[in-house]
Amino acid sequence: MNYETMTAQQIRQLIRDGQITGPTAGMAKGFTQANLAILRKEDAFDFLLFCQRNPKSCPLVDVLEPGQIESLIAPGSDIRTDIPNYRIYKDGEYVEEVANILDYWEDDFVCFLIGCSFTFETPLQESGIPIRHIEEGCNVPMYKTSVATTSAGKFHGPLVVSMRPMKHADAIRAVQITSRFPGVHGAPVHIGDPSQIGIKDVHKPDFGDAVTIKEGEVPVFWACGVTPQAVAMQSKPSIMITHAPGHMFISDLKDVHLSVL
Amino acid sequence: MNYETMTAQQIRQLIRDGQITGPTAGMAKGFTQANLAILRKEDAFDFLLFCQRNPKSCPLVDVLEPGQIESLIAPGSDIRTDIPNYRIYKDGEYVEEVANILDYWEDDFVCFLIGCSFTFETPLQESGIPIRHIEEGCNVPMYKTSVATTSAGKFHGPLVVSMRPMKHADAIRAVQITSRFPGVHGAPVHIGDPSQIGIKDVHKPDFGDAVTIKEGEVPVFWACGVTPQAVAMQSKPSIMITHAPGHMFISDLKDVHLSVL
Repeated sequence: MNYETMTAQQIRQLIRDGQITGPTAGMAKGFTQANLAILRKEDAFDFLLFCQRNPKSCPLVDVLEPGQIESLIAPGSDIRTDIPNYRIYKDGEYVEEVANILDYWEDDFVCFLIGCSFTFETPLQESGIPIRHIEEGCNVPMYKTSVATTSAGKFHGPLVVSMRPMKHADAIRAVQITSRFPGVHGAPVHIGDPSQIGIKDVHKPDFGDAVTIKEGEVPVFWACGVTPQAVAMQSKPSIMITHAPGHMFISDLKDVHLSVL
Repeated sequence: MNYETMTAQQIRQLIRDGQITGPTAGMAKGFTQANLAILRKEDAFDFLLFCQRNPKSCPLVDVLEPGQIESLIAPGSDIRTDIPNYRIYKDGEYVEEVANILDYWEDDFVCFLIGCSFTFETPLQESGIPIRHIEEGCNVPMYKTSVATTSAGKFHGPLVVSMRPMKHADAIRAVQITSRFPGVHGAPVHIGDPSQIGIKDVHKPDFGDAVTIKEGEVPVFWACGVTPQAVAMQSKPSIMITHAPGHMFISDLKDVHLSVL
């Protein structure tokens, strides 16, 4: 089966039926994939406010109402079953990874779907800019920075960024391309000197994998969707559910619809 | 005194001191002006969700935490005194207009600051596109449409749009310019045929004033910040406080910072 050419709806059905259990990168090409964070209603206003105040790191593509399981951007979907792997955290501690969250679901759960860099990596590649971690078949390198997010209620913490090395001319083009996607991280937050944003060693990422930075290339940093999950976890919520890394929610929204120009 | 060249902070101080009591259009040029909506905490999650789901009509520039009076985008400000005129509504009914809301303030009030079309009218004018309601010295014409907003909790209702007539070539340029401002309504929602969005008579706006549409001009419609106020009012909240029309909150944010490209 060619997962790349299937629709988002077809992929979600295969995930729900247990026929897809792995990472979703490259599936249903052109459809927007999203990160998941589930919190209780009591934490939802503060978290929604945190996302509103930090749109570059927390670009919301949908928020479900308390107890709601169907996303507006994926009619017919069930957030409890349509992601291949979920992670359960209680009081900020990892508990287990599960294939669905039917047993965990409660009526006061609020689901946050957060945009993912897959959306802007496709147009970067189509513009001829190589994406190193895709070339090297690993995860994108991510770093905790010395840049503070804007806090909201109980939620506060440092900005996490992802890094893609590229030629200087490509970096300029990458600013233009990703600026058109303010709804999914937008323009880079830094180009050039990792130490200026508190990164001691660019070859030792805090999350993901190190990638090669070639002679004459410059590291380009984008706000990363790991930020809201890391910040929420710090507050040790009674329960928090996320997708397992790389196992995303695939919506019916098209990436091209997230471009403003 | 030349209000146009003053800083936002200077204007806010004059408003607080009762020395400015009228509309704020043209004051502190280049600084972002915002609409105000205040609701109780019990309504705040639903309203924040409504804004998140309807970013074109409800572009949030700041949301204050419950009981907070100082906006993050205007250090030193006091939301209770720094707008020239406020309107009080109880159970969806207009009560009175007041110069400050110190007597009304309660600790569970949540303030929403919503972007305003002033931000994109300046670059339109600078690009040589005349803005008819400014030329004619009246308010922008606004219309209820047949386009539904995306509901959230108790909040639902039709999209309200503002209209600016212009030459066809200017309409194309206006799409480009306003697309760069997704944080303040962004690109138009319709160009050309008012009946397609449920407007029966473009010469009879539901709010604001009618303006001249000259031979060879096309009406261009943008999502309007009146939408969230109208929608919130429909739900008859126990209390809701807004700015009086044209009497805006002036933040320290610069309009140019709201441009994505």
